[in-house]
Amino acid sequence: MQFEITKEFIQKVKQLIVANDSIAVAKIFQEMHPADIADVLDEIEFDEAVFVIRLLDSETTSDILEELEEDTREKVLEELSTKEIAEEIDELETDAAADIIAELPEERIEQVIAQLEDKEHAKDIVDLMRYDEDSAGGLMGKELVAVKENWTVTKTVKEMRKQAQDLDEVYIVYVVNDTGELLGRLSLKSLLTAKTNTLVKDVYISDIHSVKTKDHADDIAQIMQKYDLFVIPVVDELNHLVGNITIDDVVDYIKDEADKDYQMAAGLTDDVEADDTIFELIKGRLPWLILGLFGGLLSVLIMSGFDEALIANKELFFFAPLIAAMAGNVGVQSSAIIVQGLANKIIKGSMWKRLLKEVGISLINGTVLSILVVFFSYQFGLGWLFSITVGFSLIVVIIMAALVGTFVPIILDKKGIDPALATGPFITTSNDIFGIFIFFYLAKVLLGF
Amino acid sequence: MQFEITKEFIQKVKQLIVANDSIAVAKIFQEMHPADIADVLDEIEFDEAVFVIRLLDSETTSDILEELEEDTREKVLEELSTKEIAEEIDELETDAAADIIAELPEERIEQVIAQLEDKEHAKDIVDLMRYDEDSAGGLMGKELVAVKENWTVTKTVKEMRKQAQDLDEVYIVYVVNDTGELLGRLSLKSLLTAKTNTLVKDVYISDIHSVKTKDHADDIAQIMQKYDLFVIPVVDELNHLVGNITIDDVVDYIKDEADKDYQMAAGLTDDVEADDTIFELIKGRLPWLILGLFGGLLSVLIMSGFDEALIANKELFFFAPLIAAMAGNVGVQSSAIIVQGLANKIIKGSMWKRLLKEVGISLINGTVLSILVVFFSYQFGLGWLFSITVGFSLIVVIIMAALVGTFVPIILDKKGIDPALATGPFITTSNDIFGIFIFFYLAKVLLGF
Repeated sequence: MQFEITKEFIQKVKQLIVANDSIAVAKIFQEMHPADIADVLDEIEFDEAVFVIRLLDSETTSDILEELEEDTREKVLEELSTKEIAEEIDELETDAAADIIAELPEERIEQVIAQLEDKEHAKDIVDLMRYDEDSAGGLMGKELVAVKENWTVTKTVKEMRKQAQDLDEVYIVYVVNDTGELLGRLSLKSLLTAKTNTLVKDVYISDIHSVKTKDHADDIAQIMQKYDLFVIPVVDELNHLVGNITIDDVVDYIKDEADKDYQMAAGLTDDVEADDTIFELIKGRLPWLILGLFGGLLSVLIMSGFDEALIANKELFFFAPLIAAMAGNVGVQSSAIIVQGLANKIIKGSMWKRLLKEVGISLINGTVLSILVVFFSYQFGLGWLFSITVGFSLIVVIIMAALVGTFVPIILDKKGIDPALATGPFITTSNDIFGIFIFFYLAKVLLGF
Repeated sequence: MQFEITKEFIQKVKQLIVANDSIAVAKIFQEMHPADIADVLDEIEFDEAVFVIRLLDSETTSDILEELEEDTREKVLEELSTKEIAEEIDELETDAAADIIAELPEERIEQVIAQLEDKEHAKDIVDLMRYDEDSAGGLMGKELVAVKENWTVTKTVKEMRKQAQDLDEVYIVYVVNDTGELLGRLSLKSLLTAKTNTLVKDVYISDIHSVKTKDHADDIAQIMQKYDLFVIPVVDELNHLVGNITIDDVVDYIKDEADKDYQMAAGLTDDVEADDTIFELIKGRLPWLILGLFGGLLSVLIMSGFDEALIANKELFFFAPLIAAMAGNVGVQSSAIIVQGLANKIIKGSMWKRLLKEVGISLINGTVLSILVVFFSYQFGLGWLFSITVGFSLIVVIIMAALVGTFVPIILDKKGIDPALATGPFITTSNDIFGIFIFFYLAKVLLGF
């Protein structure tokens, strides 16, 4: 049942647009879901997209606007007058409306708001715009159905009908008192089964999870996931019901955050995608590579500082990439575990315990790897003393790398910096440098060159 | 409003259990959400958890069972008789019930199913168990409200009341024909606003997304995310409505998949968490480290094969870790972009175009990095010929690394293997080896040693 964009479909649309066949184009898009239309518009040329948008009614185009990728949307909005933008905004739900207005250039924002038809809607949008994007206030919409505790079931159904007219769909009915404080929710089930003169306060469910406007998206995602909620009400400091957050917005947030963490671990800044332009892809990749290059240059300097080893122990240099790679791998593993633990809030217990645990794990892993390296090094004909020196250094390097990988993200997190920054190239590069230095230093001490 | 497990709380619970104070313990847990109780039970000792479970009623304990971590649940189920397990299963919704039964040892499965009280429920559970875990059939539950197109609104409301009795909450009402084929959905809004003698077929919404029992969880997640759905109906090959999937299960799936990809990129097999035992953490980490070690040993052999360079061009060895690190970083970037693109189904266009694009990006990134390396190498006093050789090799290595990083995941994906396997240590290690070989080989040709 999902619409698939095929190359043939895009080709056909493009041909009809070139032929200026408005009727055929309109016919194609009329039956499609706005999210699918947005996908098509993201694929075709910008002036072709504008051609299509001009053919559709404002209810559809506002939904399309909401679904477009941010850069396409920005270009489309530039084409529209403030009046036209206001018309689109009038059709949107408050949360989407606030998000799109916030993307406009400073000077257009006020003009658009001033031209909104529905003043109540405008007030809600302005209200939403003052919240931080990643807070409950920033995620919530104003669209909801609320009934009062003193109403009867009959009155409730009547009022619900009225309130529901402006909504796409009703998933939950909130119960408030006369001052608007959130008391609980009314289940559709009890509404269907209760007698008509029953009072809401006798049948509502008071056990309800809610969040405060300032709560962070991470916490909201966690609560909604844990308690399997589709919708969660948002209250202000005085427990007044001010909006609600639907799970679809939270799903998008979870997905975006996961993508961001993954990209940071892989050394990609910005939100790059395979189909971005070459320029965007370079911008997302080059900075981390330059960081890695400077790390590499530093290790060149370190190794040239130990060049007296070239005489009797030249094989040490053959092992440098191995040591650097192991330091990098161990560091990435440790930091990934911590970053995920921090994200899922399962990093508990004292720092000392964690330190002991990491040292323990590294000692065991290091010993296994060290035995292997000593064995092979000896097989390569490098002698016991040399082989054991490499093995011993490897253990020390692994412990160091694990500690750096563990504590750098913890410290960043405590300082309020995203710990995911510490994974990937950052940890790999610093561990490469530390690893190579420790390796040559210990070799110098042990082999006495 | 979210319950936080504090150290003090755990301490208090443990003390009350030691004191055998059933009344106080029961009082603490009675008011708590099953998901919170499960979190506490995951934290305390196993026999303490059993003590708590024995105090609670079967409706609560079944919900707790569903929320427990798999290993804790397995241990709890071992303590229970098949009769007791059947009682718990009777309380659960079909999808959770089927998942939990599937975790039991082969020989207990049949015994438990035979002892289920509600035979209709048992039939539904058995039906669900035949689907693959990651398919629509495996994710769906049998609990839903369906009404017939020929019913009036009055009859519909009456039937909904009956069907809703077994459900926690009603989010969507499906419309089917007499043979059970899915036709669409009835909005709560139209139910509230339509006249009582209106027929369902005159007010239902026929435009509904659905999935087939065999559809994969990835596709379902994508459809539900794209169209902002909270619930999606599942139909069989003949379009009969057989179940429905709620977004909470899909959110869990999305989160698990993202975690898995992240862990694979970081070189972690198994699902390891920061608070796992040392043994589990080692099991999750050591295999990839051993792979890395063998890669490192291979590069030792490669470099010892070029040891004639030690005479006139010893500085080449100082650059080996830099070359390996750059090859690794570039490879991880390329593969991460492809893995995410494949996951989000945005890898379109021909392989040749992608190849050209990667070569283009690598040429530009490589040129920038190469200029930097030539500059610094010359500053280090290594001469023009040597510096340019390193710079040129770096460009070649970067292009090679980008191509490996791009095409290994694409090829794995085409062969039906999870492309995420190709990120992290696998790509890093193979690129280290290729990189070092290419570097020394080119240096040998260019510098003529």
